[in-house]
Amino acid sequence: MRILVMNDDGINAEGIYALAMAMRQIGEVTVVAPAEQQSAASHRINIADTLRVRQPRSGLRKWPEGIKAYSVTGSPADCGKIALFSIMRDCPPDLAVSGINAGNNAGVNAIYSGTIGAAAEAAMAGIPSMAVSLDVYHGADYSYSAEFALEFAKKLIKKPLPRGVLANINLPNLPKGKIKGARTTRMSMLRYNERYETHTDSHGRHHYWLEGDYEEHKAEPGTDLAALEDGYVSITPIHFDLTCSSALSALDETMGL
Amino acid sequence: MRILVMNDDGINAEGIYALAMAMRQIGEVTVVAPAEQQSAASHRINIADTLRVRQPRSGLRKWPEGIKAYSVTGSPADCGKIALFSIMRDCPPDLAVSGINAGNNAGVNAIYSGTIGAAAEAAMAGIPSMAVSLDVYHGADYSYSAEFALEFAKKLIKKPLPRGVLANINLPNLPKGKIKGARTTRMSMLRYNERYETHTDSHGRHHYWLEGDYEEHKAEPGTDLAALEDGYVSITPIHFDLTCSSALSALDETMGL
Repeated sequence: MRILVMNDDGINAEGIYALAMAMRQIGEVTVVAPAEQQSAASHRINIADTLRVRQPRSGLRKWPEGIKAYSVTGSPADCGKIALFSIMRDCPPDLAVSGINAGNNAGVNAIYSGTIGAAAEAAMAGIPSMAVSLDVYHGADYSYSAEFALEFAKKLIKKPLPRGVLANINLPNLPKGKIKGARTTRMSMLRYNERYETHTDSHGRHHYWLEGDYEEHKAEPGTDLAALEDGYVSITPIHFDLTCSSALSALDETMGL
Repeated sequence: MRILVMNDDGINAEGIYALAMAMRQIGEVTVVAPAEQQSAASHRINIADTLRVRQPRSGLRKWPEGIKAYSVTGSPADCGKIALFSIMRDCPPDLAVSGINAGNNAGVNAIYSGTIGAAAEAAMAGIPSMAVSLDVYHGADYSYSAEFALEFAKKLIKKPLPRGVLANINLPNLPKGKIKGARTTRMSMLRYNERYETHTDSHGRHHYWLEGDYEEHKAEPGTDLAALEDGYVSITPIHFDLTCSSALSALDETMGL
C-alpha cells in the first residue's frame, strides 16, 4: 500500500514526522510537504509562478530509509496536486493523510486550514483521505494522535467514505487515558469575535494583526468543537461541493422566479 | 445603504472598477481590495505577518469622488476581515460584492477562488453577499456583468438569502442580447485533467507549472458549468459549512459504531 503524507506546517514540523512514522507501519510512505510554514493557506494554489521540488537530504530532519520525502516551494494544495499529478502520477497513493497539525482544525478553522487544503486534493481525486489535527499550539506530544491516526487509517482503507468525502479528525490535547472516545460530528459554524490590533511604526506606517476568540464559550452539541470540549476525538465527514441545497428555492424567490 | 466592494484581481483591476461604479448607483461604496493580484488565494489569511492598508490616492486608477478605496497587503479574505472588523467596524456594510473576476468561478474553481474568499467573509458575518465572475480572461467587457450585478444586488437586498449563504454569479462571455437568461444552479464537481509542465533551468533546477483542462466537455445538467455552456448566467447559492451530512452514517460504519 502507498500512503501520501502531507501537511501545512512544513516539511520540518514535528507533526508530519510523527504521522509519517506511524503510517510506515502499514505502507510505503511518500512525504510531500511545503518547504515553509503554510498555516491558514486554505486551498490556495500557485498559478502565476513555478513550483520547485526538492528532496531534503540534509537539514533539520533526517527522514529514515524507506520514506521518500519531497519539499515543495508552494502551498499545501500545491503539494497535493504535484504529488498526485507529477511525483506519484505513475503509482498513485491508496491513502492520503495530512497533518498532524499543531492546532485544531475544528469549526470554521477548517475553511482556512492548509492541512485540509492538502487532504482535499486527494479526496477530490477519489483517494481515501484524512486530515489530523491536535488541539494545542505549543509543546505538542503527537504520540497518541499518531496512534489514533494509524488505527483510523486501517479502518478507512477497509471501509472508505463516499468518493470526495474527507475525514477531518481533531484530537483534544489530553493524555491518552483522559480521552473519552471518538465521535462522528458536524462542523461547528461558531464564529470568532475578530478584531485587529494596530501599531504605528517609526515611519508612520500602520500595521494590523488579526486577533480573535470564539464569540461564545459553548459550541452546539453534535459539533466538532463540542466534542473537543467534552474530551472526545471529533471526526467530521467534510466535502467540497459548496452548494447550499436548502437555499435553492430561496434563491429562486430572490430572483423572482 | 453602504456597499463593500472587494475582489482578488487587485485594486487596479478593470473588473472591480466596473463593479464599484455600478454599485454607487444604489449606495455609498467602500472598496477594499488586495494591493496585488491574488488569484487562486481561496480563503487564505495572513496570520504570521502584519497587514498594511493604504488609500491609493494616485496610481493606475483614479477612484471618483465619493468612493472610498483601500488597498491591503494581503489576501482577498484578509480584505474581507479588515473591512468588516476594522475599516467599516463602526458602520458595517448592508451588502458585500466581490468581483468582477476575470475568469469564471464556476465548478471547482469556486474552491480556489479568492473572489469567493473575500465574499465569504461577509456572508459568514451575516451580511448579504455576492460574488460576480465573467467567463473570459482577456479583453473582458464588464459592462453587462456590472449591469446584471446591480440588478441582482437590488433583488438580494429586498429578499436576502438565508444567513451565511453567498450568491455565486457567473456570466458567460456573450453580448447582452445573446444571453438567454439566468438560472439557479448547483456547483459542478467536474474535475480538471491536471498535469505539470516541467522545465530545467541553466542551473539544473526543475520548475513546475500547473496546467489543466476539464476531463469531459459536457457538464451535468443543472450545474453552473452547464448553464454557462448553454448561454445562461448561473447563480449558485453556496455556503461554508463543509459537513457532508449524507456521509455521517458512512463514517459511523467506517469507525465500526
